[in-house]
Amino acid sequence: MVTQVEQAREWLATAVAEARAGLAEGGIPIGAALYGADGTLLGRGHNRRVQNGDPSVHGETDAFRAAGRQRSYRGTTMVTTLAPCWYCSGLVRQFGISRVVVGEARTFPGAHDWLAEHGVEVVLLDDPECVAMMRDFIAERPELWNEDIGQD
Amino acid sequence: MVTQVEQAREWLATAVAEARAGLAEGGIPIGAALYGADGTLLGRGHNRRVQNGDPSVHGETDAFRAAGRQRSYRGTTMVTTLAPCWYCSGLVRQFGISRVVVGEARTFPGAHDWLAEHGVEVVLLDDPECVAMMRDFIAERPELWNEDIGQD
Repeated sequence: MVTQVEQAREWLATAVAEARAGLAEGGIPIGAALYGADGTLLGRGHNRRVQNGDPSVHGETDAFRAAGRQRSYRGTTMVTTLAPCWYCSGLVRQFGISRVVVGEARTFPGAHDWLAEHGVEVVLLDDPECVAMMRDFIAERPELWNEDIGQD
Repeated sequence: MVTQVEQAREWLATAVAEARAGLAEGGIPIGAALYGADGTLLGRGHNRRVQNGDPSVHGETDAFRAAGRQRSYRGTTMVTTLAPCWYCSGLVRQFGISRVVVGEARTFPGAHDWLAEHGVEVVLLDDPECVAMMRDFIAERPELWNEDIGQD
């Protein structure tokens, strides 16, 4: 039997692969994936600020876009390497995504507590690889990271 | 001297033109524009769910994307024909957009009160053309509208 945390860790691997792909492209290493209620992978993606010159593409919004039009998000899970910002948390709340799996919230606070207050199930994994990837990136490119989260 | 409300109405005309363009393309008639602190138009856009098959493109996110990468959003204004949903309100909060001009909030409640609580200046115009455009659209295509706001 696969426990919920085992399932979450397996799904996180998809988001981590996306984050690594983004880093290899010279981008910000944050990845995400949207899974359906039945466990099907609906979409996966990563931050593309640098690659596309597009500030609207965070990991979560890229995975959401890749999933295409859906009539309902009931039962879906958004898996992300990093705690979701207000923008991505707003996405989750507006579209009624049921669950969020967060790789880590050490390097960025995120708004997942707010989502939990509004009925979203939150699974925080505190994954060491996710922490290391963001910690290294923020140390190397602080100005790019601040741009991505709207910090003056 | 141009008052703040006159300025807001002038800027709203850009968002309304975008909404009309979206409607003419067979899309959802919501438009937006992002103006800089000095009044420069940084980006404009409209909902592209139908046109691009892309659920991530609301009017506000399209205008934000069109503005490209910005080092700071301090002093900027997001103008939108319809009250911003949680997704678009999260965008405004995360990136520190200073002001939101809302065409109308009669046909959709929006999260602009939440933005106001968090320090964003909100100008609600209650524009009759914006109301009529959304009211007609929702009456004609309720299923499409519900899809766009994640209502099951």
